[in-house]
Amino acid sequence: MAGTIGLTSAWTWRSLETPVPLVDLDRLEDNIARMAHHVEARGLALRPHVKTHKTPWIAEAQLAAGAQGLTCATVFEAEVMASVTNEILLAHPPVHAEKLRRLFALPDHLSLIIGVDSPDAVGMLQKAAEQWPRPVKVVAEADVGLKRVGLRNPTDVLQLAQAIGRAPSLEFAGIMFYPGHLKGATSDQSEGMLRLNQDLHQMCETLRRAGFPPAVISGGSTPTAPRFGELADLTEVRPGTYVYNDRTTVSTGACDLRQCALTVSATVVSTSVQGQAVVDAGSKALGREPHEGLAGYGEVLDHPEVVVTRMSEEHGILDLSSVTWRPRVGDLVRIIPNHVCIVVHLNDVIYGMRGEVVERGWEVAARGRGYCP
Amino acid sequence: MAGTIGLTSAWTWRSLETPVPLVDLDRLEDNIARMAHHVEARGLALRPHVKTHKTPWIAEAQLAAGAQGLTCATVFEAEVMASVTNEILLAHPPVHAEKLRRLFALPDHLSLIIGVDSPDAVGMLQKAAEQWPRPVKVVAEADVGLKRVGLRNPTDVLQLAQAIGRAPSLEFAGIMFYPGHLKGATSDQSEGMLRLNQDLHQMCETLRRAGFPPAVISGGSTPTAPRFGELADLTEVRPGTYVYNDRTTVSTGACDLRQCALTVSATVVSTSVQGQAVVDAGSKALGREPHEGLAGYGEVLDHPEVVVTRMSEEHGILDLSSVTWRPRVGDLVRIIPNHVCIVVHLNDVIYGMRGEVVERGWEVAARGRGYCP
Repeated sequence: MAGTIGLTSAWTWRSLETPVPLVDLDRLEDNIARMAHHVEARGLALRPHVKTHKTPWIAEAQLAAGAQGLTCATVFEAEVMASVTNEILLAHPPVHAEKLRRLFALPDHLSLIIGVDSPDAVGMLQKAAEQWPRPVKVVAEADVGLKRVGLRNPTDVLQLAQAIGRAPSLEFAGIMFYPGHLKGATSDQSEGMLRLNQDLHQMCETLRRAGFPPAVISGGSTPTAPRFGELADLTEVRPGTYVYNDRTTVSTGACDLRQCALTVSATVVSTSVQGQAVVDAGSKALGREPHEGLAGYGEVLDHPEVVVTRMSEEHGILDLSSVTWRPRVGDLVRIIPNHVCIVVHLNDVIYGMRGEVVERGWEVAARGRGYCP
Repeated sequence: MAGTIGLTSAWTWRSLETPVPLVDLDRLEDNIARMAHHVEARGLALRPHVKTHKTPWIAEAQLAAGAQGLTCATVFEAEVMASVTNEILLAHPPVHAEKLRRLFALPDHLSLIIGVDSPDAVGMLQKAAEQWPRPVKVVAEADVGLKRVGLRNPTDVLQLAQAIGRAPSLEFAGIMFYPGHLKGATSDQSEGMLRLNQDLHQMCETLRRAGFPPAVISGGSTPTAPRFGELADLTEVRPGTYVYNDRTTVSTGACDLRQCALTVSATVVSTSVQGQAVVDAGSKALGREPHEGLAGYGEVLDHPEVVVTRMSEEHGILDLSSVTWRPRVGDLVRIIPNHVCIVVHLNDVIYGMRGEVVERGWEVAARGRGYCP
């Protein structure tokens, strides 16, 4: 099959060996354009997180639509994306010596913005950044309620800004935060958004009064995208999942099911146990990502009442007990996953199609870590 | 770092960028030898499942220790393992046309044994096997209680054996089963093992009486390994996880914690939220694999009371609320995962060490699917 994709229009997605992730290219393009317009209309900068797609040509499409740079979670993502952008925000504290070495071995045309939340991380970053040709911009990571990383108290944020300010190779650039606790599209999150707005404003005021005005206030996620306009101090947003969307995004109200661009194609391999069908997409293709309020690990396209209720590594079990539909051995199904970022990380190759026809295939260039044994 | 591993003894695991899976090579070798002896002592053949390691040199070590062939779940695993063995059992029904094409494009020195559970799969297999230079051995997959794939009723197993017997390019070889519902090392599983023994015997007797004596009765798993001797008709076993073991294996009683050979090395990147430490190993490195009776997604080596209670894609949260130990930003921890097979599938490169010194690094050659875009 190698090499034939793109040379002929004879390949439909049905020809592709399963399990395999398929991307509806029309939906992908719509998703990229829609978020770009949405963010631009609110006067914000867009710095999409590449963790969802890990793919340079998709990052290029995001940049062409108006993104001003990219967000990466790993140094390998930054290495791969250095060929398509001039500005990368690393949204994960780089704390290991080898990781820092790789970070500052990146092509030095890059403008780097690094998020950290501790004086220890600032110290390591300063030491590693000494040979970088220009000051490295550093944003203080704030905890706005997720309780994962970040500083909660405005005074702590100010102290970190001061530590960054004292480091000769670093430059304090502002604040970053990730509101992962807010599924912002739904109306019952209004109070959370209001509180987030107040918390951010208090942090910004504390910094401004002390002579550390934050130029960048970087936050946001795909679920909070519909409510970006409610955060007065925000300057840029870093949504990632929106390029593909998934069942979780749908459940937050930030998109509808027809905006899910990625499905996993799978073949029914067994119907021997009554009331179920077994496909060849298990946890190694779909990911085991339960989500509160969602049944199962993925739903079947065009049969939303059928979900993947159990998985082994290479088996996915479709529960048919509540439906009359009975797929046969050899039938293909397409599954909308709960969490698309994990699906991308599990699979090396993805195919893109228009309608039924496969238009291109690509390697997920930034999956893995880029380690050399 | 590329190329330096193996050329110098200066690299300890602490030098390796995190997150990264580390294998204790002494434990790996002990695990391989112990299972080989255990199986040989019971007069059984050993056909280890490669899904756990996906690595040719480890398969070679299993074969050198006495394994008579290998078990694969995917065609790509079979393609990669064809260079180290002459006999592969494919333990997943090959039902898609492209998958079947690749299966019979394998080097034809291989003796293939394929497990199926439906006349439809037999029909597709017969068609695809026509050009194969010798009959393809086929085993009927039996459901012995897991309710995943396989036939439960002895009469259905016989009918499938008859369908295989009628296919000119196929040869009925026996029965395979996977007792994934039994965590066989614990005493409260005695009744389950007794029933499994009876079920298997009934299937074998039905086949023998009808003139389809099953030469191969292939089953078993790492958790049931301590009780292989209780299944009278068994001829071969296909454990996989035993090479590395994990918290789940420990929980079944089939190994102890000091027999877990693989840990994930991770760096503490944040301690900003009280009562927790955050490491750079999240669901994209560790896998989100909850297991009944186990707290969290992995436990910290030498601090078994500390587990990964929450994860994001690149963040793992260690709950420190019940301990006095307080790791600092920059400290390394090693995490014993709940499910090691998923860790291997998530990571491209693994390092092996003796004591503290890194002895070799290798790519996980059979991870992914081997698709060419």
